[in-house]
Amino acid sequence: MNFDRRGVMLVIASPSGAGKTSISRAILETEDNVSLSVSVTTRQRRSNELEGVHYYFIDKPKFDAMRRSDQLLESAEVHGNFYGTPAAEVEQKIAAGQDILFDIDWQGTQQLTRKCRPDMVTVFILPPSIAALKDRLEHRAQDSAEVIAKRLHNAREEMGHWEEYDYVLVNEDLQESVNNVRAILHSSRHWRRRQSNIGSFIKDLQAQIDSL
Amino acid sequence: MNFDRRGVMLVIASPSGAGKTSISRAILETEDNVSLSVSVTTRQRRSNELEGVHYYFIDKPKFDAMRRSDQLLESAEVHGNFYGTPAAEVEQKIAAGQDILFDIDWQGTQQLTRKCRPDMVTVFILPPSIAALKDRLEHRAQDSAEVIAKRLHNAREEMGHWEEYDYVLVNEDLQESVNNVRAILHSSRHWRRRQSNIGSFIKDLQAQIDSL
Repeated sequence: MNFDRRGVMLVIASPSGAGKTSISRAILETEDNVSLSVSVTTRQRRSNELEGVHYYFIDKPKFDAMRRSDQLLESAEVHGNFYGTPAAEVEQKIAAGQDILFDIDWQGTQQLTRKCRPDMVTVFILPPSIAALKDRLEHRAQDSAEVIAKRLHNAREEMGHWEEYDYVLVNEDLQESVNNVRAILHSSRHWRRRQSNIGSFIKDLQAQIDSL
Repeated sequence: MNFDRRGVMLVIASPSGAGKTSISRAILETEDNVSLSVSVTTRQRRSNELEGVHYYFIDKPKFDAMRRSDQLLESAEVHGNFYGTPAAEVEQKIAAGQDILFDIDWQGTQQLTRKCRPDMVTVFILPPSIAALKDRLEHRAQDSAEVIAKRLHNAREEMGHWEEYDYVLVNEDLQESVNNVRAILHSSRHWRRRQSNIGSFIKDLQAQIDSL
């Protein structure tokens, strides 16, 4: 039996280096019915990126037009490039009962919350220690000491927003964290207010009793 | 690393015959840190019942005294016997981070909600059909046709309260339902407002960044 439900907008946020990307990847790989939100961006496509998979690549006038006409649920500028979440695609998936994972920061979460609160479930991931965080940032090896210092500064700010999230996880063990995010996703699917037609299902059960 | 949290007061309610007892039993058997709430009752102890395990057996004057002095979180009269949930034991366990499962009806849930809402997570279990419900009630074989008719009547009323619960599950497959209740329990443990000391943990992380 299938019960119609709205999809879950699952937001996973964390300071950089807390393990959010590994957790998100594991959820996407092991869960049916969950896809990563695809943003629009004005930045140049890299050779390993696919249109509609990694991003929708658009120019600045198009981006501005989308933002002006309220077609973006949230948007941000990073290093002179613009990013945004297209409203139409999200609404279409959620209405069809498909879950969407969002990898956004506290500013994106705040913007999204203003428009989509009832569909959202938000999870904040913390590192077990700053030593662990610094270790992960340094082992990426791609960043200079300066960039790492900047990321730690941003991490400090991001952490200040933990009270804006529904759930808080400390990522000590990746598998355990993935299991916890999975439990949050699975339970969210059964949240009463997400069920579209259970009211009429119950009316029908009651009518069956009346006709006995 | 251990993060202090309040325990979860997990309420599982359903019309009689929807499978609530089987689900509760499976959760209690397979989950650490969860115990069934033990009620006080004025009814006679049966030979297979143990004091403090199945119930606390007390007399009517004691029950009245507890109710008058607000020592019961909820109470009910069934067939002339009185039942109630002792407040002190619940608070002690929840404060120690132990989860408690409550097998109560909509009236008990309403009473509990008035006093303990922030600690509670409530789940409503539905049968997939009235045929399935009737089948389960009849296969218990212990009840007369009259009693079964009465239970169906009560089931009808109970179902009318589905909107008072956080989560709604249709129990088509026992194992799936147990998994879903487990996901609800596990996610609830990480609900932000249940964490007692994560705020100071985060302050400490931030201080570690400041001192780098």
